[in-house]
Amino acid sequence: MGDAEKIRNVARRIADVRKSGTSVVAVVSAMGDTTDELIELAHSVSKQSHPRELDLLLSTGELVSCTLLTMALADLGQEAVGLTGSQAGIHTDTSYGRARIDRVDTSRMQKEMEEGRIVVVAGFQGITEDEDITTLGRGGSDTTAVALAVALEADRCEIYTDVDGIYTADPKIVPEARKLDEIGYDEMLELAYYGFKRHPRSIELGRLYNVPIYVASSFNQTPGTLIHGNADKKIMENRIKVTGIACTTNVAKITVRSVPDRPGVAAALFEPLAQSGISVDTIVQNTSQDRTTDISFTVSGTDLKAALAKVEELTKEIGAGGLASEANLAAVSVVGSGMQNTPGYASRMFRMLADGNVNIDMITTSEIRISCIIKEDQAEEAVRLLHRGFQLDQPE
Amino acid sequence: MGDAEKIRNVARRIADVRKSGTSVVAVVSAMGDTTDELIELAHSVSKQSHPRELDLLLSTGELVSCTLLTMALADLGQEAVGLTGSQAGIHTDTSYGRARIDRVDTSRMQKEMEEGRIVVVAGFQGITEDEDITTLGRGGSDTTAVALAVALEADRCEIYTDVDGIYTADPKIVPEARKLDEIGYDEMLELAYYGFKRHPRSIELGRLYNVPIYVASSFNQTPGTLIHGNADKKIMENRIKVTGIACTTNVAKITVRSVPDRPGVAAALFEPLAQSGISVDTIVQNTSQDRTTDISFTVSGTDLKAALAKVEELTKEIGAGGLASEANLAAVSVVGSGMQNTPGYASRMFRMLADGNVNIDMITTSEIRISCIIKEDQAEEAVRLLHRGFQLDQPE
Repeated sequence: MGDAEKIRNVARRIADVRKSGTSVVAVVSAMGDTTDELIELAHSVSKQSHPRELDLLLSTGELVSCTLLTMALADLGQEAVGLTGSQAGIHTDTSYGRARIDRVDTSRMQKEMEEGRIVVVAGFQGITEDEDITTLGRGGSDTTAVALAVALEADRCEIYTDVDGIYTADPKIVPEARKLDEIGYDEMLELAYYGFKRHPRSIELGRLYNVPIYVASSFNQTPGTLIHGNADKKIMENRIKVTGIACTTNVAKITVRSVPDRPGVAAALFEPLAQSGISVDTIVQNTSQDRTTDISFTVSGTDLKAALAKVEELTKEIGAGGLASEANLAAVSVVGSGMQNTPGYASRMFRMLADGNVNIDMITTSEIRISCIIKEDQAEEAVRLLHRGFQLDQPE
Repeated sequence: MGDAEKIRNVARRIADVRKSGTSVVAVVSAMGDTTDELIELAHSVSKQSHPRELDLLLSTGELVSCTLLTMALADLGQEAVGLTGSQAGIHTDTSYGRARIDRVDTSRMQKEMEEGRIVVVAGFQGITEDEDITTLGRGGSDTTAVALAVALEADRCEIYTDVDGIYTADPKIVPEARKLDEIGYDEMLELAYYGFKRHPRSIELGRLYNVPIYVASSFNQTPGTLIHGNADKKIMENRIKVTGIACTTNVAKITVRSVPDRPGVAAALFEPLAQSGISVDTIVQNTSQDRTTDISFTVSGTDLKAALAKVEELTKEIGAGGLASEANLAAVSVVGSGMQNTPGYASRMFRMLADGNVNIDMITTSEIRISCIIKEDQAEEAVRLLHRGFQLDQPE
């Protein structure tokens, strides 16, 4: 949600849908940089962590846009009612800052819709059993939207945002990138995990309950992208192999050398990291030689220092031989559900990168994704090489 | 509540009280101009009135300062918990923008205090039976504070604000004005109605339940003023007659001429005004001559245009002779519970104004107050004249 004019635009769009006879529940995020500004405000008062109070503070950002959108709808002659997460019946666990939705009590929303009102819900927030306010963390408003679509058994969930759909690659890097009309949940999840703008959490929820999610621009009427389950099948049958190229930057790598090859050693390494709140992405461990092995893994560049400090302790504890690290890396990923039954995609990818003089540092694969860790300054070139190489610029 | 530094100051003060072994429930207002900024934001989106949504929007201002103060308290090693009006159990009617508190369910606050926590409550807001958020209107946070003091059977309610107590007159107008150590509810109410900075509503509540209210500065440690019931008696016995001089500016007067003198005519005039939300202050009607009378009343200068339009209609309906109005007036009032049994105060007041060449336009009196409507540009001079004349600059 942006400023006053943008809010009126969003209201007009919702009013048009309502006029067509459809019941609407709209979920709003905070305006512009509100959430970051509130975090900064909290930091100006206290450098410490106050999860419960921070969540109550952050929840106000969505309340503001919720009330403004409701007013704008009323101005258009649409009866509308703004609801807090609590009023909308969104019950969560008590994990402040990253609460999970336990259940949605739809009774208030149902009642308002039965009385002909558009329901506007403040996203990103819920309430615990003790009536404390929680927030859902990154991608929270998307998660709210999909959760409400599930609970209300809606036909679909539409997300209007600052991108006008899902592209075969980031159009800022690859100008000829194509917008996809549709994409499967699995592919979208892999793309989201590997650098696409949508947060995986709402996609996971959509996949779990098979709710189609439509992503389009809040600024214009350009058709967006529909994320749905049948897209996986359709794309497979059409033998379209690669769906998109994703890219994550600010990646750092840590390698623990000569790790004794015995059961439990990986757990001894990664459990303490997880407990310290450091999120580990790719992990690579090769078959051991001489009863020792090297374990490499990637973390966000932002977490590198903290991760190194932790791993240094652990290296001694588990009796490993040494430690190396490297920052300024990137992960480029090729995603496509068509790849899983067709050999040769990985080798084609490696060939394209080699021909472009891009050195590959680490490789991981899933059923529908191949990811390579490369130097960050070669990331954009690599995305362009792969986009061209897999002919994603050609119409389907 | 002001900025980060001010919040830390307030936290230190509350922490000191808590350390002395006292349980504390702190009620916060919004920071600085937050409420006005939110109103402006709503206006930027919609020019129409959306009472329910506006209240939800405005309630966020107090949520922000509530969370920040709670964080600052935790930084000082004080366990604290921030509560919304709803979590604090403040139940109101559904009059958005000026909701009245029906009852306070103190169970959550009690529980938190039993666990040793300081309770920080977002002022100015409550919740209806249908769980909709309401705000209490002007002076709302003071009202919340006194209401919680009543419900929790607290020893007293302390209000820390931008004035350091109750003065015999506005120190900006009368530099030699004295701060009062104590004042009775009745006098404070008259002063509040006639231009003193505190809103009458919280004082009324304090009087009703006999909760002492201490008003002091949030910026320094200067002793403030205690508003309590025994002060009325004490001041009477001490034969201190006048307590303070109050002044309201931006007053406008409307006179309806030759109103037929029959029962119900005043109601026919003032009921429609009240229904239009126009607040009428002083009303003066003299004994009738020739079966007609003139009725004069004052409204806020801001309401003059709307009031005139309404009264113009009504003038015809009730068959009155004509209409006159005047803006840029002020009301100066002399307040003192000692006056009620002692004659001569009114005449002394009129003499002082006459000697200062201040013309009196209208006069009204209550048991403990005499008010004169005069020209606005003479208001400050009149306050100074009366303050000097009644020797309020002399120590008691």
